[in-house]
Amino acid sequence: MLGEFDLIARYFAPLAASAPGAFGLSNDAAVLDPAPGYSVVVTTDAMVAGVHFLPDDPANLVARKLLRVNLSDLAAMGARARAYVLDLALPPNLDEAWVAAFVDGLRADQDEFGITLLGGDTVKTPGALTLALTAFGEVPTGTALTRTGARAGDDIYVSGSIGDGALGLKALRGEIVGLTETARAALADRYHLPRPRLALGQALAARGLATAALDISDGLVADLGHVATGSGLAAEVEAQAVPLSTAARAALTADPGLREVVLGGGDDYELLFAAPPDTVAAIAALAEDVALPLTRIGAMAAGTGVRVLDEAGAPIPLAKAGWSHF
Amino acid sequence: MLGEFDLIARYFAPLAASAPGAFGLSNDAAVLDPAPGYSVVVTTDAMVAGVHFLPDDPANLVARKLLRVNLSDLAAMGARARAYVLDLALPPNLDEAWVAAFVDGLRADQDEFGITLLGGDTVKTPGALTLALTAFGEVPTGTALTRTGARAGDDIYVSGSIGDGALGLKALRGEIVGLTETARAALADRYHLPRPRLALGQALAARGLATAALDISDGLVADLGHVATGSGLAAEVEAQAVPLSTAARAALTADPGLREVVLGGGDDYELLFAAPPDTVAAIAALAEDVALPLTRIGAMAAGTGVRVLDEAGAPIPLAKAGWSHF
Repeated sequence: MLGEFDLIARYFAPLAASAPGAFGLSNDAAVLDPAPGYSVVVTTDAMVAGVHFLPDDPANLVARKLLRVNLSDLAAMGARARAYVLDLALPPNLDEAWVAAFVDGLRADQDEFGITLLGGDTVKTPGALTLALTAFGEVPTGTALTRTGARAGDDIYVSGSIGDGALGLKALRGEIVGLTETARAALADRYHLPRPRLALGQALAARGLATAALDISDGLVADLGHVATGSGLAAEVEAQAVPLSTAARAALTADPGLREVVLGGGDDYELLFAAPPDTVAAIAALAEDVALPLTRIGAMAAGTGVRVLDEAGAPIPLAKAGWSHF
Repeated sequence: MLGEFDLIARYFAPLAASAPGAFGLSNDAAVLDPAPGYSVVVTTDAMVAGVHFLPDDPANLVARKLLRVNLSDLAAMGARARAYVLDLALPPNLDEAWVAAFVDGLRADQDEFGITLLGGDTVKTPGALTLALTAFGEVPTGTALTRTGARAGDDIYVSGSIGDGALGLKALRGEIVGLTETARAALADRYHLPRPRLALGQALAARGLATAALDISDGLVADLGHVATGSGLAAEVEAQAVPLSTAARAALTADPGLREVVLGGGDDYELLFAAPPDTVAAIAALAEDVALPLTRIGAMAAGTGVRVLDEAGAPIPLAKAGWSHF
């Protein structure tokens, strides 16, 4: 493996070449100027080999997932993405090809999301490969979405489809039988490659439609619980309203017990938001504008806790409310 | 050990209580507003148990060193410190008492430097305890110090004293014989607890005195090499001019071979800067104002490379130019 300075020069400095504030990664720190009238938005997530990704996951997908779970947090705040810094703790058996593929993944997503590397630190570790990424976005000052503003009677919406990521992990582990190869690949892709809903988050913030928002990473029920707790309310979800992809629908047909994975599994990286009932038409227009399904799955109500109701209106007991990252 | 949400609620949320943009650590991301006319400055450093700190180092000192090595980078840019985010990968054998002591260290330095926690991520690892911290400062837009602006003929200055940190590590390992307990404790303290020179960096930027600056973390010679390379120049240092603490002087008296540790050992976290010769009086006034010795140790010159000269003006051969963190 190359030394620290050679790794930076060969692999990481090119990722920072277009950002003047990165100083070619040759400075002590970087400079970031938010646009006039904007606030900086900051989020960080760490991933450890064997805990957050499979040891033989392709390095370029590991890089893109690490970046995208952070971008998803920026999306949940209504921010546009700007830049990131990266900490890598590399074990001795990691080879340069891994780093090259990891950097290829970063490059692909830098191009897709219009962001740049600003800085980082590369260290060695006797233990597991460990990655930490801190992402920066910007939002018009005072418009950042939070989890705490939902009101009783607000509708609850989710973007896209729910459960694909968690089902994808199970599919990769061979724990779902009877899936077509097409469905398996579609779910695995959603597990490996979250779609941060940046355009949606920015539009929600700009149009003032959402009273609360977050991205679904811990699981639909657990994350809705965060909105409910943060807003001092209860939330009620109609299970049959939760939007499913074609692949997820196929998996649930094969094994109806997987519904719990959909509701509680996490790794969705869709946005969940609350909006007043009189915004129905505006939400429909927004869905058109961002070319993304926005589905009403329930409503906020006075009280506490999250209830999920089946087709008959009876509460569904959930053994596992969500996934703790620790 | 507590779960992720309990760790956050009990230990980390109180560290973020005074920052409205941290949303009590209950949001997807944080909001950071630089003061009007200021740019955000960002730096990140990672530390791994057994690599960057001794496994039995007190947790509160580990926390403060992690924070301070980052603040030292902010100081090198002329920034004032504002906030930080933290990624922790905790092994299963770590107990809650370690986290409590770690948080005590963060609290102490938050109070000392007037900064707050903005966010973070806590994950589990099967490997070594791994810490990554990203620190945020702010600097008047356009005044950030860099490594690249030195000119031939500029004087080279360092703050404080050089070599204490590297000698402290050797002393802790029992590799320096004949030290008094007072000297050993003084050096160990400098190894454990860097003094980020924030007031000095801000004053250098505000007064426009430095043509280049950085903090000495890799070692005096290696870091001066970064300024020389970045500025397209050579640098010449008079070894006897390098300022030593009383404890370091005692160590070198006992073992003159330790001079190489002073010049190349790293972990100084003093600022090195270049300044035109006509600023001598202004630098002297600055040293008074920030109550910190600022010592001229040499000068920049046309050419390349770093030369260290002994009392007779002969070049000192240096086996080890600096410490790579990787």
